[in-house]
Amino acid sequence: MSDITTSALSETDTLSVGGERRRRTGGRGAERIRTGAAGKYRNLVNRLAKTELLDPAALDAMHEASLTILEEIGMDIMLPEARTIMKAHGAEVTEGSDRVRFDRNLIMDMIASAPREFQMFARNPERNVKMGGNNLVFAQIASAPFVADREGGRRAGNQEDFRKLVKLAQCYDVIHTTGGYPVEPIDIHASVRHLDCLSDMVKLTDKVFHCYSLGKQRNLDAIEIARIGRGVSMEQMESEPSLFTIINSSSPLRLDGPMLQGIIEMSSRGQVVVMTPFTLAGAMAPVTIAGAVVQQNAEALCGIAFTQMVKRGAPVVYGGFTSNVDMKTGAPAFGTPEYMKAVIVGGQLARRYGIPYRTSNTNAANTLDAQAAYESAFSLWALTQGGGNFIMHSAGWTEGGLTASFEKFILDVDMLQMVAEFLTPLDVSQDALALDAVREVGPGGHFFGTAHTLARYESAFYSPILSDWRNFETWTEAGRPTTYDHANRIFKEKLASYERPPIDPAIEEELDAFVAKRKAEGGVATDF
Amino acid sequence: MSDITTSALSETDTLSVGGERRRRTGGRGAERIRTGAAGKYRNLVNRLAKTELLDPAALDAMHEASLTILEEIGMDIMLPEARTIMKAHGAEVTEGSDRVRFDRNLIMDMIASAPREFQMFARNPERNVKMGGNNLVFAQIASAPFVADREGGRRAGNQEDFRKLVKLAQCYDVIHTTGGYPVEPIDIHASVRHLDCLSDMVKLTDKVFHCYSLGKQRNLDAIEIARIGRGVSMEQMESEPSLFTIINSSSPLRLDGPMLQGIIEMSSRGQVVVMTPFTLAGAMAPVTIAGAVVQQNAEALCGIAFTQMVKRGAPVVYGGFTSNVDMKTGAPAFGTPEYMKAVIVGGQLARRYGIPYRTSNTNAANTLDAQAAYESAFSLWALTQGGGNFIMHSAGWTEGGLTASFEKFILDVDMLQMVAEFLTPLDVSQDALALDAVREVGPGGHFFGTAHTLARYESAFYSPILSDWRNFETWTEAGRPTTYDHANRIFKEKLASYERPPIDPAIEEELDAFVAKRKAEGGVATDF
Repeated sequence: MSDITTSALSETDTLSVGGERRRRTGGRGAERIRTGAAGKYRNLVNRLAKTELLDPAALDAMHEASLTILEEIGMDIMLPEARTIMKAHGAEVTEGSDRVRFDRNLIMDMIASAPREFQMFARNPERNVKMGGNNLVFAQIASAPFVADREGGRRAGNQEDFRKLVKLAQCYDVIHTTGGYPVEPIDIHASVRHLDCLSDMVKLTDKVFHCYSLGKQRNLDAIEIARIGRGVSMEQMESEPSLFTIINSSSPLRLDGPMLQGIIEMSSRGQVVVMTPFTLAGAMAPVTIAGAVVQQNAEALCGIAFTQMVKRGAPVVYGGFTSNVDMKTGAPAFGTPEYMKAVIVGGQLARRYGIPYRTSNTNAANTLDAQAAYESAFSLWALTQGGGNFIMHSAGWTEGGLTASFEKFILDVDMLQMVAEFLTPLDVSQDALALDAVREVGPGGHFFGTAHTLARYESAFYSPILSDWRNFETWTEAGRPTTYDHANRIFKEKLASYERPPIDPAIEEELDAFVAKRKAEGGVATDF
Repeated sequence: MSDITTSALSETDTLSVGGERRRRTGGRGAERIRTGAAGKYRNLVNRLAKTELLDPAALDAMHEASLTILEEIGMDIMLPEARTIMKAHGAEVTEGSDRVRFDRNLIMDMIASAPREFQMFARNPERNVKMGGNNLVFAQIASAPFVADREGGRRAGNQEDFRKLVKLAQCYDVIHTTGGYPVEPIDIHASVRHLDCLSDMVKLTDKVFHCYSLGKQRNLDAIEIARIGRGVSMEQMESEPSLFTIINSSSPLRLDGPMLQGIIEMSSRGQVVVMTPFTLAGAMAPVTIAGAVVQQNAEALCGIAFTQMVKRGAPVVYGGFTSNVDMKTGAPAFGTPEYMKAVIVGGQLARRYGIPYRTSNTNAANTLDAQAAYESAFSLWALTQGGGNFIMHSAGWTEGGLTASFEKFILDVDMLQMVAEFLTPLDVSQDALALDAVREVGPGGHFFGTAHTLARYESAFYSPILSDWRNFETWTEAGRPTTYDHANRIFKEKLASYERPPIDPAIEEELDAFVAKRKAEGGVATDF
């Protein structure tokens, strides 16, 4: 894998936020990247010193506790093929049961080969994304069963709304990848849903996308669709990760069959596994945040080690998804102080292992009110300061993931862009220090009309999508619109301006033929 | 002042967030502080490594540019008495004008005597607050001309609303001080307004409060009211800072008469000056954030140096209030990415000088919508990570400070409490790592009923004031309340439960007599 990583990184520029060029290697992506401002938010780099909540001794204690869990208790590995691979690598498989225990040295040996950084390849090379290091990649919401906008209310997912959300993901550069189905389109039969949805991902966007690990054939279909979309050989696909899958453990301490199968299919072909336990403190994990993160870490390390057993050097991401529950109702809570701590400590662990870190932009609000904003903003605070690399559910998530909201998507895009602007290095050139402008204006003057201001005012500051800065009187005359009102208007305007990204007609034809053939074959069995 | 600082710190415990005791000195405050949970948010300590956006060279460049402004351009010092003091200390006063220039060594020599940390004394010693270091002190909104709640709409400030807001400040421990008049009660004549308002501050709260610097007599009245409230001698007052004043420069590069007079009256008596330029980039300061912060720094250093000319060692706070304007309309913008950068760089400068740092929880929203929340949350992010010590306008600020909102007050209190919980050290004891609970539950189980969970679930997580975590159906049955609805209900419930803090009847009598006497004398002249 180290060869793959190196060659991947050598083929594109590393851009900082705001388009400032850090490094030019003159590879094939360089010319396209010079095209300018449209790609302002395409390559985000987070140069902040990462916040650490734990000192090295405490981090060690969590690490060792996780390894003790894997060594003493073990995990239930619910696929015979996976247990066979694990046994071949030295894990202790209990015959006649799913239980597998892992020596701590085995785990550490395996995860050592996971790459620190790698690139993911989109069908449009300008949309390639880099995982790990200081890179920050935002993925759209995934996997909501419901969808909502103000006029249509909350409803079950369907293909029309699925497509609208995918189109919106294409409209904003700060959304770097889709994240899965933003909403589950249940009006498409489950046997062929992945064929329609994934071919939409190729056609409606030119960004990296995700495949669900719900049985081997879906993984294989997804890899073939991604390969066709990129117009490359399977050999090239296998050395250029182009597709990712989220693998959730069934916490506590279980990995089920389709998830393990997904790791086998994806890792063996050099595609990206995002290994993410979902460890709600007080429900599927201990009620203490430290205990829940220990369990998260044990499950993540197990899955990551398994990717390396399948293929040394396979690209893998350390996923954290620890939050707390509302202890009055048992409902999941998100964007809480506890969530912030779990996100930051998860980042410390991922950096300790040298593996890219996935976390999420979360909230549990039922509508686009202040709660939706503060829970998301607190999530963004923690994941930015905590060094998240790959941010799932960046835009559109509400109700703890139950509903994809069109209005929340716009709110999130605005907040993501603000985070990106915050991460832009502050210009401290002599010109920016502005001594001459201060000399010109002097005590008691004003800066509105100075040459220094006039030369910069149009682009000096981030221009938000939603913030309504009109004075109270003007705002009142306009009918006192709230952020929700603005977001409702803007998602419709944006959808109306959507343009399909160009695609080679031969590729589209090959894609349609593949989907038609697979549909004719009946798609996949849906009885697992 | 170093003696004052030392004695102040030795007289109370230093508490961390959550009431954990860090240091016990057994002073006179110790017994009271042991009384427990009611004071959970009273003493906040921010142990995060502070985020730095500038490397030492860039910080030096800003520092030097500020000193160049003071040396070459100078400031307009609009009070003869102040110019005389400055001249006596070696500043270059231009006869026949307000202009004063300061050698960089003079500035650095003066600010060197400002204390790094000091304590402020409330009439209830449990409400004393520590300024500087890692301490984090939240002050309520100050100085709004308007007040709003949902039923009453937006209206000019008045005594009734003033008192309600002051009572709310008393209700929450996370509000450590009031910040000035939360709303300006214009139904009280300006000649006696300060007498009524400050005596309300003493009676309705037991926390530290602020006096406006609007002429010498108001400062003197405020100091006397604070002295009476504490029941101490003037000598003790002068060694125990009990009152603060916000000093704003009239940017660019002017300090007007009442502000300079305020520094003279307050610093000479050992009371706290919070020296805060208001430098909107593109209006009263250069359009670049770096330039605006350079100017902020020049003005702040000038005012801070003057406090030390008045009295070496006088307690002073470095205030930053740099934000950008909306370049389309010229309206001030807050809680923006630019504001975040200015807050963090301001913190770097204040720490460079070893002076406590004041910043603010800002937003420019017109109502309690998502914008109000995200702008405030981004402000809290920056001021927490950036090391703010004294946070003005922590609760209740809307419309860029034009309106004190009852509902926003509750929203802010909730967010402040979340910040406080985030800053609580994560428990990583063996018990918190929860290996035994994981052993007990094992793969595939659940943690709801374990002893580990049952022993902790009631207090495991922060219980928010506003977040509505009911599922969509239950929330719908409840009428789909938003954060605004909850905040509206809660501020009224909280006001109904308000209790006046106990006060010695002799002190109240002395206070009433003083106010009556001063009113009989006509209060203060209002013709300046």
